[in-house]
This record gives sequence, C-alpha cells and structure tokens, in this order.
Amino acid sequence: MNDSEVAPLIPDEGEVGFVEYQDFVSNERFQFVSGGSIPELRLRYETYGHLNAAKDNAILICHALSGDHHCAGVHRLDERKQGWWNFMVGPGKPIDTTRYFVICSNVLGGCQGSTGPGSINPETNQPYNLDFPKLTVRDMVNAQALLVDSLGIDRLHAVIGGSMGGMQTLQWAIDFPDRVGRYIALACGARHTAQAIAFNDTGRQAIISDPAWNHGNYDPEKGPDQGLAVARMMAHITYLSDVGMETKFGRKRRSGDQSKEHFDVEFEVESYLRYQGASFVSRFDANSYIYLSIAIDRFDLHSPESLDASLSGVSDSGIVVGFTSDWLYPPQGNREVVEALLRLGKDATYAELAMDFGHDSFLVQAPKLYELIHRFLTR
Amino acid sequence: MNDSEVAPLIPDEGEVGFVEYQDFVSNERFQFVSGGSIPELRLRYETYGHLNAAKDNAILICHALSGDHHCAGVHRLDERKQGWWNFMVGPGKPIDTTRYFVICSNVLGGCQGSTGPGSINPETNQPYNLDFPKLTVRDMVNAQALLVDSLGIDRLHAVIGGSMGGMQTLQWAIDFPDRVGRYIALACGARHTAQAIAFNDTGRQAIISDPAWNHGNYDPEKGPDQGLAVARMMAHITYLSDVGMETKFGRKRRSGDQSKEHFDVEFEVESYLRYQGASFVSRFDANSYIYLSIAIDRFDLHSPESLDASLSGVSDSGIVVGFTSDWLYPPQGNREVVEALLRLGKDATYAELAMDFGHDSFLVQAPKLYELIHRFLTR
Repeated sequence: MNDSEVAPLIPDEGEVGFVEYQDFVSNERFQFVSGGSIPELRLRYETYGHLNAAKDNAILICHALSGDHHCAGVHRLDERKQGWWNFMVGPGKPIDTTRYFVICSNVLGGCQGSTGPGSINPETNQPYNLDFPKLTVRDMVNAQALLVDSLGIDRLHAVIGGSMGGMQTLQWAIDFPDRVGRYIALACGARHTAQAIAFNDTGRQAIISDPAWNHGNYDPEKGPDQGLAVARMMAHITYLSDVGMETKFGRKRRSGDQSKEHFDVEFEVESYLRYQGASFVSRFDANSYIYLSIAIDRFDLHSPESLDASLSGVSDSGIVVGFTSDWLYPPQGNREVVEALLRLGKDATYAELAMDFGHDSFLVQAPKLYELIHRFLTR
Repeated sequence: MNDSEVAPLIPDEGEVGFVEYQDFVSNERFQFVSGGSIPELRLRYETYGHLNAAKDNAILICHALSGDHHCAGVHRLDERKQGWWNFMVGPGKPIDTTRYFVICSNVLGGCQGSTGPGSINPETNQPYNLDFPKLTVRDMVNAQALLVDSLGIDRLHAVIGGSMGGMQTLQWAIDFPDRVGRYIALACGARHTAQAIAFNDTGRQAIISDPAWNHGNYDPEKGPDQGLAVARMMAHITYLSDVGMETKFGRKRRSGDQSKEHFDVEFEVESYLRYQGASFVSRFDANSYIYLSIAIDRFDLHSPESLDASLSGVSDSGIVVGFTSDWLYPPQGNREVVEALLRLGKDATYAELAMDFGHDSFLVQAPKLYELIHRFLTR
C-alpha cells in the first residue's frame, strides 16, 4: 500500500535517510520449539537511531508475512522506495529515532538474508528447502531474543508490529515479560479464523501445485513463480477492504471496453493485482512463504491452554489495535486479546481505528495511528 | 453446500424422482451480442412437471457459475446426490411441480452438454477453445429464449435464479419484459464490485498460469486441473461466510497437532477445501470457467446507460433477495436494484434474509427462503 511513497533523492532532516543492513550470526545450534534444530542462525537486521548508555531505549519492530528488516530509509541514492514503515520511523516521527534505538530484523524462516528454507545448510552444503524445521512464531521470537542479546540489550523499551508482526509482539510479551517494557500489537488477534486458514492454504496449494515447485527442491532462479504470484494476488485482496478497493478501482477499465481480446487485462483492479503478484515473485521465496504462512496458521493463544492461561505471565503494558475494515483479522479477534488481559488485571488497552484500508491499515499513513503510537511510546 | 443431501434410493412422493435430460439443438447460426457467432446451438436441459394446455405455467430456473441443468431429482437409482436445488423443486415444494412446468438448462458457454468453449465447432471439427465468441449474460438469456420458443411457450410464469442465475433473471426481465410474468433474483446485484472482479481474475490467473492450460488448447482429459482446483478453492471461500466457516470448521484439526509432516493437511477446513477443488475439476471445464467468470465480471446494469435506464423497460413484478452474510455480493448491491425499480414505479420488492451461509445462502434449505419463494410464485 506504500508504493506511492517515494524517497526524496537527498533524504531531508525528518527522514532516517541512508541505512545499511547488518547480519547477526550465531554459530550455536538453534533449537526450534518443534524439536528440530539448525547448526547456525543468521538474522539480517537494520537499526536506526542510537542505543543510549543505559541501553534502555531500544524498540524492536516485527514485520508482517511479506515484510522484511528494511522498515525505514533507503539503501542507495537511486533507491526510490523507502522502507515499509518509513512514515512511522524517523526523527520526530512516532517511533522517534532521535529518542529510540530502533531494531528491525528479517524473521527466522524469511528470505531477505535471515536463515530460512532457502538458506544453505552448512552440514550438507545444500539448501534446507523442506528439511527446514517446523517453524512457529515462538521460534521467530527466540531468534530475535538472541539478536537483542548480541546488542547488549536486556530489556526493550517496546516491541511493536502488525499482523504476523503483531503475533510476534504478543509472543514477546508472553515469553519474555521481563524483557519488554511495553508492546503494541496491530491488526492481530489470538489466532486465525477458519477463513484465514482457508485463504492461506489455498495460497499454499497454488504454490505446491506449480510444477516448478518440485516438492520444494527448485532452482532459486526458476522457482514456482506462477503459483507464488497467484498466492500473492489472492492474499493481497484479503489485505484490502471491499470499500477500499471500490474507492481505488471500482470498475475502471484499463482500455476500451469493446476489446475483442478475451484475455487482455480489462479492469484496472486486474492490472494492479497482476502487478502485485509479479513484483512479489521477484522478492520473495516460495518455501519461505509456505513456512511463514503455516506458522501464522498455527499461532493460537487459545492452545494448548486457554487464552487467559497463555496471557497470564504478561507483565508489561500494551495496546492491541484493531481496524474496522480488517475482515481477515476482524476487530473482535483483536479485542478478545485485550478482554482476556483485562480479566487478568493487566495494563492493557484496546483501540479500534475506523480506517478503510482493510488489514493493511497499519501500513497506511494516518494521523490517528501516528498519534496513538506516539503517545503510547512516550507516556 | 448441499453435499449432505442424499437421495433416497427410491424417491418418495414428495420428490421429483427420476429425471432425464434432453438436448435442444438449433441449426441456425447463433449470434452473440459481441458480434461473434456459432453455426449451431445446443442447450442441455431438464424439465419437471407438466406444461398445461394454456402453456402459461412454465418456470425457468437459471443456474449459477458452477451449476448446471440438473437442479432436481436423480438420473439413476445409484445416483446418491440430488440436483442442486432439489429442496426447492418438487411436488408440494415452493417451485411446485404439481402446478408448474419447470425448466432448467445448462447455460450457453457451459460444459455440461450445452455449447461452450469445449464443444466441437462443426465448421472446423475442432473444439472452439478460445475461438468461442466473447460471452455475456445477454447471450445466455438469448439462447434460453430459443429453448423456451422451442417448447411453444410465449410467456414464462416466472424466471428465478441466484448469483449468475440472478443476473440471467434480471436480464430476462430487462430484455423480454413481455415474456416474463414475474422474476426472483437471489444474491445478485447490478454488477460486480472491484473485489469480486479481483477474486475472479485471480482464479483465471491460476488457470491460465497452469502449464497444462496451453493457451486454452488442452486435451480435455489432461486440462489445467491444478489451476482450476486452486481457482475453485478460492472461489469457494468467497461463497461462504466467516461466521459460517467458523461454525462449521473453526480450528478443528484433521489429525494430531504434533505431526512432523509439514505439508500434510492439518486443519479440517483445508481438507474440505482441497476436496472441493479436486471434485470440481472432475466436473468442470477450465475454459468454460474462464468464459463464464468473465461474463459475470462484465455484467453491469449501470452501463452503457444508468441503472435506471437499464431497468426502464421492465414490466413484470419481481423480488430481489439479499443475504446478510453475503460479502461477495453484499446486500446493498442487491438492494440498489430494487431501489432503482421503485424509483421507476415498478412492482418490485427487496427481501433481506439473515442467514449465515454467505453468498451460497440461496443454496441452503431454509424455511424463510422456502416461504418467500412459495408465496411470491402463488400470489
């Protein structure tokens, strides 16, 4: 949704500006919750701002399924597109890099530099592919905790993220209550609905049924691009809202209605979605998509114990933010988490923002979201 | 949604019982609205009940995208599944076959016996495939009108249908006001939203990007099954509702949670959808799916003139029925048609039924739907 945000050629004072990523590498065996393990762990990450002497001003940002570690600034002068949360992160912005040391890492299981199914297993010198261990949101968070350790940070000022990033945020609050000062989980409930699982599984089927997938053993240069593009097109619809799409596209036609060509793109919305599918393929790995989407389908704070039991150890204060037009992760699912926290006597707030951008609302620049995050971080 | 309805081995008196299909064949060239034409037209159809001497008791049922002419009864003793609207059509049922002569035909462009992209073009002895002319809902209705002519019927007591069948129903009322006594359009508005187009186009992309599609020139025995199955899985989600899926499936698991197999079916909803995809492939043609889905995307009563202008010639009385949980064809889109009809001084009623089965609600046996149709047909 952030496509139209174009970086100034020379970033001005209100911007993060040029950034470089770094790699955290741990050569200790990394244990997955499932019992599997990998011999080494790499997390690619970026930081913005400076860690203070007390090391108590760090904020961890967790990205969503299709996101990555590059959430603000630009890497090069000719890079026209800023990081995915650039409007939120920078000098004077809600996640103010003049006050906070901001960390964002590509998740474990991802494909933008962190260890994932496409990484080479040093024990076999082959890509893990489907030998990559079963992945959960808890694994993602455990890996991030090692990165935070490596930076000498005991306790984060805050953890924040939307969608899959919101799940990580809640998992941080649950698994590391002593290490999180406050948390903000956006567009994220306690677990996926049957409908959300159904969409994810259909996307996985699109990938798996592409002959180029080859049971996960594809050449990275010739992966299941068609299946991944279809999966992304479908997912992208679920990230928007009916009203938002109607406002943006309606039934606008790309060319004359009278075209005799049956299979030309006819409607603007078709053109937009096909572009989204094609561009996703150029930046995302199909096996990563499968692993991450299964991880979020499995995320379930109602299991193995009740929601209240899962949340009982949370000690930090938090906000869960729902968006009225989010039909993939409906607001009642977001609210349910806060209701449980309040039942448990925790310091928690539910905020519901009326925005028309569907699930992707947290990626859209909006004064009320801006204000909410700014105030909560500084209160 | 009707899968659980199993035919009694010996149909009882309240059932249509055994039926046979028939074929209407016209050897006159059939002209499409687009300007294209085909040398002959075949429509496969079934009838239930008897045409009276005055030939004024006929009801035409129009089927939805994935439906066909077999809407009631069974073909054989060993056929356990009844026609798709069996609960609605039969002796003493709302579409009462002791009173009415009921006709249901597979649409032009379909794949269950009527002429469609998979039919052999007698001029080339090859399947039409993508040489089949550009198809619209008006073409479907024009073909049905020839069938109705052939049965010696000047004026139908009623036309009725849901979804794509609702579009045909409205088109009948618009194009043949003198030949329709009354009409009932269910789960159908004046045109698709951007979201509905987006889902349809993603489904088409799933088919087209399957290498087996081969630019439409596939062996009917080895078509783009994988792509068509994915298209169907996705579409099926859009026909249900979030609440309905949550009630039916929730997060029920098919087997133990702890399975080490990554790609086994884990959730019940996944198993259900994969079955839906696989079974659809065995009965549906991919090119038909493409043609029909484009036809409904193009259906637009707001174009080329206004909605009021499109509906100005309607002379018969009608009901448009919306379903509260239908998010693919939201109720306001259904209501909009009736608002226009009322502005024009027509005899029209909007009924909104609170049902949790999403777009597919019209395929679900429910007393209020039953009652509504019964009363309107007999008033």
